[in-house]
Amino acid sequence: MATIGSTETSLTLGTHHLNSRLIVGTGKYATYELMQESLEVSGTDVITVAVRRERLIDADGRNILDFIDLEKYTILPNTAGCFSAEDAVRVARMGREILRGLENPGADWVKIEVLGDTKTLLPDPVATLEATKQLVDEGFSVLCYSTDDPITAKRLKEAGATSVMPAGSPIGSGQGILNPNNIRICLEYLKEDDPDYPVIVDAGVGTASDVTIAMELGCDGVLLNTGIAGAQDPVRMARAMKSAIEAGRDAYLAGRIPRKLYATASSPETGVIAPKG
Amino acid sequence: MATIGSTETSLTLGTHHLNSRLIVGTGKYATYELMQESLEVSGTDVITVAVRRERLIDADGRNILDFIDLEKYTILPNTAGCFSAEDAVRVARMGREILRGLENPGADWVKIEVLGDTKTLLPDPVATLEATKQLVDEGFSVLCYSTDDPITAKRLKEAGATSVMPAGSPIGSGQGILNPNNIRICLEYLKEDDPDYPVIVDAGVGTASDVTIAMELGCDGVLLNTGIAGAQDPVRMARAMKSAIEAGRDAYLAGRIPRKLYATASSPETGVIAPKG
Amino acid sequence: MATIGSTETSLTLGTHHLNSRLIVGTGKYATYELMQESLEVSGTDVITVAVRRERLIDADGRNILDFIDLEKYTILPNTAGCFSAEDAVRVARMGREILRGLENPGADWVKIEVLGDTKTLLPDPVATLEATKQLVDEGFSVLCYSTDDPITAKRLKEAGATSVMPAGSPIGSGQGILNPNNIRICLEYLKEDDPDYPVIVDAGVGTASDVTIAMELGCDGVLLNTGIAGAQDPVRMARAMKSAIEAGRDAYLAGRIPRKLYATASSPETGVIAPKG
Amino acid sequence: MATIGSTETSLTLGTHHLNSRLIVGTGKYATYELMQESLEVSGTDVITVAVRRERLIDADGRNILDFIDLEKYTILPNTAGCFSAEDAVRVARMGREILRGLENPGADWVKIEVLGDTKTLLPDPVATLEATKQLVDEGFSVLCYSTDDPITAKRLKEAGATSVMPAGSPIGSGQGILNPNNIRICLEYLKEDDPDYPVIVDAGVGTASDVTIAMELGCDGVLLNTGIAGAQDPVRMARAMKSAIEAGRDAYLAGRIPRKLYATASSPETGVIAPKG
Repeated sequence: MATIGSTETSLTLGTHHLNSRLIVGTGKYATYELMQESLEVSGTDVITVAVRRERLIDADGRNILDFIDLEKYTILPNTAGCFSAEDAVRVARMGREILRGLENPGADWVKIEVLGDTKTLLPDPVATLEATKQLVDEGFSVLCYSTDDPITAKRLKEAGATSVMPAGSPIGSGQGILNPNNIRICLEYLKEDDPDYPVIVDAGVGTASDVTIAMELGCDGVLLNTGIAGAQDPVRMARAMKSAIEAGRDAYLAGRIPRKLYATASSPETGVIAPKG
Repeated sequence: MATIGSTETSLTLGTHHLNSRLIVGTGKYATYELMQESLEVSGTDVITVAVRRERLIDADGRNILDFIDLEKYTILPNTAGCFSAEDAVRVARMGREILRGLENPGADWVKIEVLGDTKTLLPDPVATLEATKQLVDEGFSVLCYSTDDPITAKRLKEAGATSVMPAGSPIGSGQGILNPNNIRICLEYLKEDDPDYPVIVDAGVGTASDVTIAMELGCDGVLLNTGIAGAQDPVRMARAMKSAIEAGRDAYLAGRIPRKLYATASSPETGVIAPKG
Repeated sequence: MATIGSTETSLTLGTHHLNSRLIVGTGKYATYELMQESLEVSGTDVITVAVRRERLIDADGRNILDFIDLEKYTILPNTAGCFSAEDAVRVARMGREILRGLENPGADWVKIEVLGDTKTLLPDPVATLEATKQLVDEGFSVLCYSTDDPITAKRLKEAGATSVMPAGSPIGSGQGILNPNNIRICLEYLKEDDPDYPVIVDAGVGTASDVTIAMELGCDGVLLNTGIAGAQDPVRMARAMKSAIEAGRDAYLAGRIPRKLYATASSPETGVIAPKG
Repeated sequence: MATIGSTETSLTLGTHHLNSRLIVGTGKYATYELMQESLEVSGTDVITVAVRRERLIDADGRNILDFIDLEKYTILPNTAGCFSAEDAVRVARMGREILRGLENPGADWVKIEVLGDTKTLLPDPVATLEATKQLVDEGFSVLCYSTDDPITAKRLKEAGATSVMPAGSPIGSGQGILNPNNIRICLEYLKEDDPDYPVIVDAGVGTASDVTIAMELGCDGVLLNTGIAGAQDPVRMARAMKSAIEAGRDAYLAGRIPRKLYATASSPETGVIAPKG
């Protein structure tokens, strides 16, 4: 039994090797203590932090990085709050400087978010592509927050993205994966002739089953924040997410039974969708 | 952190206290070794075994009970393969005798299945109700495999069932919970003025997320068999199911964020379902 | 083109031949005028009326039957508001007397509702079966409002029901068909060796697409009330329902294209549900 | 009753006023006769035709335009088969020349498709935006086939598109609207301060209910091809689609009842999605 998981203990993202397939954000926690405990319980290796000054420093002048154990976690700087490619590039560079100063291994990568709108926080595909090209040129390992559109995903990979991170649903919406069909096509495109290319669902997770479903589809990891931070009991939800990612990864690798109308039905479920003539 | 789970470590079903909320079946495994390893990895306390002779004894004359560690597991005898109340009652008594002989604590309970049809293996509501009444009269602690119909669930509880176990979908169909609305109403009925009354989803689980969803709805446990036994790698799927049940229970207790069209939408998702005027 | 619909212009329910596959209820309208106009626009032949006195006669002493054109419509008396088999039988007989007195052809049939609970208005399977047997014995043509449980459906047909009418979802819930899998199995059971046996979805319809989906599954008709009466513009919704039933029937008979991940995918959609190994 | 529909008899798309909200394609029919009859029965005013030479002229040298009544229908030329902005612009100009020569009113508009991949036929967001800008500059009324991404939809409108036409699902997939959440946000964005801006679901329709659902969401029309052409009985499916679009439009305008767990539940359905604490 001890051998079940031994063949795949880690997720590789550029130069980083992660033990956990869950990446967790740091926003919206009621207190830093709650954040710390939630991060700990989630089992994550990588914590993403918004680099814009107004997000890094709180109303009391405290820097969120002072509340994270930088020996333990790799920081993934992100460009949350940016609405143009230029702005995202600027913030990415800033993140690199800060993490170099802190000697955190996260200095070489960035999660870019280039948003199209303050209301929905949906990504802007064109500006995201531009920022990706620029940052790849500058030697960044770029993880791209994206829509779930497979063509956009393909273009981002072609532009040199280390990972494409399609949204399951809008940031903070708690809707989970609204379009598994698109995620499947993203996986098909991005892993064609390149099965190890990492695809991570980023945004929209509301509860544990959303994470499990993402992993069952064959995604390599999940990035989330509000699902934990906004739960009534964030620490317990962090534990739920840890279990959920393990459940989903194992279920994917285990190869599930087919879906049928009933067990002895002659064909799987789709057969009955196109009835008659 | 150590305190998260401490308030609820076990599930009580009649006189039985379970550490795991997952109950696992024993049918359809390629080998007994695979079954043993899967049961072990699943973390379950309770294993359900079909008592009918043709199911207990295999083609080589081997008794499945000889391959289960009776010191470790409580056996939950079940009446799989019965198509009438009389038959189910007879088989239930048989199970009691066998388990008494083996001095297994499972002698006092039974999971009744009274099926309506060999093709779909769906339960017969009327015959299930009859068998339940009879077996409760005879002092059994009765766990009832049922449809997801809330009124039937209510009647079974009124008849003295220790637990009602609605099917998520047909046995072996791998469809998960097809009608969460019905499961919600079952929970509302069965737990009204009796919040500890145990409700267990039995049948239909195809993969880990199905288990997580059942628990997130507020169910107390899940019983499954084919989802593990029929997977390409049953042992790994057993581990997935173990994680999935923990994920779902924690997520339920943690209190998830609401679902919205997008994070800053003024009302939760339903608001937009009834548009216009 | 004129030939498209000619092969099947009517639905036969016992001795009744209906031009429309939509059966409409009469409750919950703001005014009788709105009801009259909605019934007219819906294109229905058959109107179902609750026979219990407190439902037949309104607060002003007006009898709903005085507001329905009895020359034009066949009345389908129903036992709404009954919570036991005895009560339903009594009310069914009452309906027969009333309709005989009015010389309406609906005197020979009844839609039985035997409810399990005032809160959810879900049907009681056991009592429904009892009432059906009794009323069939008394020569009624019995249309049975039922859960979507296929075994219950089968038992009702065996008891002599003229039509089984599974609920899509709870009365007035507006959720549409929550479990198409169950409806499919009901159709498979009820139409096996008897393709003309009529299966009608009764209850739960919220909007037009719910009706279309019911018909696309292969159901023979839909019965609804709140979906029209509770809409902001009932008359327009009545027209929507008329179109929806025609759309669904035609789509079913036309034989839809299969569902695929994308058009050139090698297998239909289900193939991708059980990925990997 | 005659007044129900009188307030909105047509859909305006640039200079075109359509009586039907259904736009139908011309590809994949077994014979031209079947195509002609299907178009007739569908009730459409506007027929979209692929302008690329290899699509316009069949293997026998026949031009599809010779089989369409150009007095009756407005042709909407489309750029199907184009994989770059340049190609789409070239084909759009070609379409204008052809329709001018035929004196068809469709000479002033174009539906642009700029595809990202031959396998899935998904649109390329960046190239679509480029082609739209160019063609708007050249005086075309541009209808844009797009993903369902709301930010892309917004950018296309800003670029001067006459209508944005999000895909429900991939062309020919028959999956219907996979992500109603995105369509809702598209509608919110595109109709903000501009309620008459036309939004048309284009691609993915498999059967009638898919059309009804699109219209119930508040879309202004549906464009489809394979759903009819690939059905076992295309003419009947054309009639189904005609009814479906009327059903959906009426249902949208009528204002549906809310969705609830059951009729007397205190809050609409979402309340129960975030249970507990």
